[in-house]
Amino acid sequence: MINEVIVTTRSDNGGAQIAPMGIKWREDIAIIAPFRPSRTLNNLLARGCAAINYTDDVRIFAGCLSGRYEWPLSESQSIDAPRLTDALAHTEVRLEHIEEDELRPRLLCRTVFEANHAPFRGFNRAQAAVLELAILTSRLGRLPMEKIEREIDYLGIAMDKTAGQREKEAWCWLMEKIDRHRLSPESVR
Amino acid sequence: MINEVIVTTRSDNGGAQIAPMGIKWREDIAIIAPFRPSRTLNNLLARGCAAINYTDDVRIFAGCLSGRYEWPLSESQSIDAPRLTDALAHTEVRLEHIEEDELRPRLLCRTVFEANHAPFRGFNRAQAAVLELAILTSRLGRLPMEKIEREIDYLGIAMDKTAGQREKEAWCWLMEKIDRHRLSPESVR
Repeated sequence: MINEVIVTTRSDNGGAQIAPMGIKWREDIAIIAPFRPSRTLNNLLARGCAAINYTDDVRIFAGCLSGRYEWPLSESQSIDAPRLTDALAHTEVRLEHIEEDELRPRLLCRTVFEANHAPFRGFNRAQAAVLELAILTSRLGRLPMEKIEREIDYLGIAMDKTAGQREKEAWCWLMEKIDRHRLSPESVR
Repeated sequence: MINEVIVTTRSDNGGAQIAPMGIKWREDIAIIAPFRPSRTLNNLLARGCAAINYTDDVRIFAGCLSGRYEWPLSESQSIDAPRLTDALAHTEVRLEHIEEDELRPRLLCRTVFEANHAPFRGFNRAQAAVLELAILTSRLGRLPMEKIEREIDYLGIAMDKTAGQREKEAWCWLMEKIDRHRLSPESVR
């Protein structure tokens, strides 16, 4: 089972790194598999810890894909990494073991602290649609534009029916990036 | 914004009613709009209260659509309705005002108690896929089978990549119902 979370780490120079990521669990061991090279990988290897943040604010996922990294952070309880202030819950983990891989090493991380900050409010279909659009956006240039457009039409239905303000904002950020790619495929990263 | 939740109520004879429902909020007023006729509507009108349960266990959504209503219940804190024992969080509400409608009256319900039981663990794409399949299943006979099959193919991708045991079980229950409908469209309710 893969859960979509926000992993936060601290770099050498003290800066925060915020990264959407799909993680797995083996009991209380989180398996974080960042791509090589990536700042999250560097930070996790250097400091040996990370916060796993569970948020229903899809703007953070869409934001990280569209150059918006300024989200409120707080200090963690027991590790040297920031955490998302407004997450519904978070887990602090320490790196325990590395399963090497050329593309995505698997970092096995043990839970050392958990906190439940605010209640989950139920599923929202628009949040799921934004998440799917974020995944499509992360694959611009590798997927045919026709497939992306077909999926946007499908995902747009749940958006129209069930989105709140945060979901609409996140959707717009991603659509802006997709539109820029349409106009100038080479320029979009 | 619409959130997909499980509404639990108690009937005249003391029995529990468990119903998946999309609800809206106006600040701390929940807007519950059950179809007419329905047990949830009867119970809410008769007893004037309900529990709104927030769960990430998609088996409960799929179960209620496939004849599986036996989910662990507990007493609420401050109202005469059961609540889902294993919900991540729940809100207890009292009926305050009714906006009449022939098909779906809107019941405006005020929050009287809330509890946060367990942390949200992040989005899971398979949970969203099960929810979409549940919605398709609830429209069998009203949607063209070709459209349903196309969407099953699409939703199946997230299932294959990200589902855990609970999501797979829920998916199977819904697919069994869809398969029965394929064989004998008239017999499936």
